[in-house]
Amino acid sequence: MIATFAAILDWAGLVVFAVTGALVASRKQMDIVGFALLATVTGIGGGTLRDLVLGLAPVFWVRQPAYLLVCVGVAAAVFFTAHLPQSRYRILLWLDAVGMAVFAVTGAEIALAARAGPVIAVAMGVATATFGGIIRDVLGGEVPVILSREIYATAALCGASLYVVCDALGTAPPVAAVLGFAVAFLLRAAAMARG
Amino acid sequence: MIATFAAILDWAGLVVFAVTGALVASRKQMDIVGFALLATVTGIGGGTLRDLVLGLAPVFWVRQPAYLLVCVGVAAAVFFTAHLPQSRYRILLWLDAVGMAVFAVTGAEIALAARAGPVIAVAMGVATATFGGIIRDVLGGEVPVILSREIYATAALCGASLYVVCDALGTAPPVAAVLGFAVAFLLRAAAMARG
Amino acid sequence: MIATFAAILDWAGLVVFAVTGALVASRKQMDIVGFALLATVTGIGGGTLRDLVLGLAPVFWVRQPAYLLVCVGVAAAVFFTAHLPQSRYRILLWLDAVGMAVFAVTGAEIALAARAGPVIAVAMGVATATFGGIIRDVLGGEVPVILSREIYATAALCGASLYVVCDALGTAPPVAAVLGFAVAFLLRAAAMARG
Repeated sequence: MIATFAAILDWAGLVVFAVTGALVASRKQMDIVGFALLATVTGIGGGTLRDLVLGLAPVFWVRQPAYLLVCVGVAAAVFFTAHLPQSRYRILLWLDAVGMAVFAVTGAEIALAARAGPVIAVAMGVATATFGGIIRDVLGGEVPVILSREIYATAALCGASLYVVCDALGTAPPVAAVLGFAVAFLLRAAAMARG
Repeated sequence: MIATFAAILDWAGLVVFAVTGALVASRKQMDIVGFALLATVTGIGGGTLRDLVLGLAPVFWVRQPAYLLVCVGVAAAVFFTAHLPQSRYRILLWLDAVGMAVFAVTGAEIALAARAGPVIAVAMGVATATFGGIIRDVLGGEVPVILSREIYATAALCGASLYVVCDALGTAPPVAAVLGFAVAFLLRAAAMARG
Repeated sequence: MIATFAAILDWAGLVVFAVTGALVASRKQMDIVGFALLATVTGIGGGTLRDLVLGLAPVFWVRQPAYLLVCVGVAAAVFFTAHLPQSRYRILLWLDAVGMAVFAVTGAEIALAARAGPVIAVAMGVATATFGGIIRDVLGGEVPVILSREIYATAALCGASLYVVCDALGTAPPVAAVLGFAVAFLLRAAAMARG
């Protein structure tokens, strides 16, 4: 059950990040393969970095190609439905906030499961949460969200830290995950609402 | 004989990509070490990413340093001969098309040899074909070729897919490689001729 | 004693590179987590690439999280003291030169210790010396120092090469390290003084 809950979270993060990648492709008027490429690198980028530095190669999507296929499916869905330029960027930012908060938690969780200590687990949470979006913005020619003066990495750091602290205190993993997600998302949401 | 054919293809892709890296260095009026650096990252970038995510570290050029030396030699050759600014960018695009088509095939081939499934093999073809050029363009301050509205990743995807399908159908590897290369190159060439 | 000397050098390179990352964050008026992020990727970026391609995963800072904590500490120190905008960029360039020269030597040294040959050792010296700064500049939206027409990669190449040659000739490692560092730093310093 716990594994299932974590896996659901992880898939949810992948899907929303893939949507943000496809929306950037849409802003750049790329073709459908461009959509698939940006959706995929955004969806799997953070987890790929995490697996590589932890020594978990071949990386997760080589072991489970379904991750790739989902990113491509998401890209196709956005390609055939996203024709709302005026609201696209706003939607992109909110989905990005959800993905960031999810990956802050699951990045930390996977690092702990690979027997990393708390410092590395927090670092992996931040890296997993931010790296996909950084690649998306660099490839898409956008100013990286992480460089805006709004709170972003800070939110990922707080979410990952709370998850790691809860884990150390023996909190049930799903509870720790929900708490970590909530803190990361609410911090980011507050910054966006104010900004 | 088959291994030889695949190896020749791989070296050919490396050389043409290294030339494109050196030509970007030439456009930026870099010094000879800048030429060597851009030629090398362009030549080996895609294969490095491929080896890392497949878990094949140390990567191919650490195992066979000759790859590095060839990139450096190519850079030196371009440094002492390329003084034709007006035609340089056009040549760069055509060589890039050859390198992309070669690496779409060899990337898929190496993934299959590492026992990856067909989805991963196609993804590795696309990643190997595009990543070196992406690094070249990001480091060289050019607009990434892959972001232009012309067909690019699509061509790599079609070439890699055809190779993987042929392989599954039992086609002789050199035939599959030539077919995959031809489809990828012709699609890209058509886009460039039209664009 | 030798191990101690090499380790001191490596920490020194990490600290000065982390400072340069924090100074870029300062130029961009980022928040404290932005400082920590840029300081960390700049400090550990080169070594991470080196470990990944050599197959030394999990990478060094996953094995020794103290590296991360030092980067974060450096970022905090700069955050609370750097309010001298006019001189910041000049300081950044000089610290960057020190870090580059240190990592050219330690990158080569770690590659030799991992039983790589001389060509790979030189390549690892250049990669370790330059990659952290490249990521810093790309993320910070600066023109990469390595692309300026001043000597940069050339200095790293000469320093790493001298270290590898000295090592092959049986020079005591600390002497080889000081010689390699001096050549790399002086070449870069001369270019900056002239430029």
